[in-house]
Amino acid sequence: MSDEKVDTDNSIYIGDKPFMNYVTGVVIQFTTKEAKEVIIKARGKFISRAVDIAEVASKRFMKDQIKVKDILIDSEEFQNKEGREVRVSIIEIVLTRI
Amino acid sequence: MSDEKVDTDNSIYIGDKPFMNYVTGVVIQFTTKEAKEVIIKARGKFISRAVDIAEVASKRFMKDQIKVKDILIDSEEFQNKEGREVRVSIIEIVLTRI
Repeated sequence: MSDEKVDTDNSIYIGDKPFMNYVTGVVIQFTTKEAKEVIIKARGKFISRAVDIAEVASKRFMKDQIKVKDILIDSEEFQNKEGREVRVSIIEIVLTRI
Repeated sequence: MSDEKVDTDNSIYIGDKPFMNYVTGVVIQFTTKEAKEVIIKARGKFISRAVDIAEVASKRFMKDQIKVKDILIDSEEFQNKEGREVRVSIIEIVLTRI
């Protein structure tokens, strides 16, 4: 394993920081950190945002350099503060170099 | 249901109607209308909702009967009222019988 593999997890978790923070994060992973793949991950209401970030990164900032390789959706169940079972959707968008 | 654009191509467009309307729409397509595939489509902020609906339909209401076969994301560009170019993300989630 090469030194670059020290940073094993090229995942970017989408939350409510400014939109461009995440797009820049994707670009830095592919450029400065020379990642072969970047995985954009989000839960619940942030899923729409994750798709926006994947689209803007792959169609504008790194057009013809990266593409969407795979998209996975799933659910997580957990107990909320009142002890009720709650289901939340998750998405993982795998971006890869072209 | 007849008002919604679900008839010809088994597509269900997600908007701001009650959540269960859409889940029921998916179930009806697979049961009463005997569709082999149903495509859940959404734009912008409704993308998170589309994922929720796909998850609830496939993991709860039609568990072990349908599954996510394919997920596609893309962008559409159009001019807004002020004449500015606007980009909006879209998602299509293809559900199929198991």
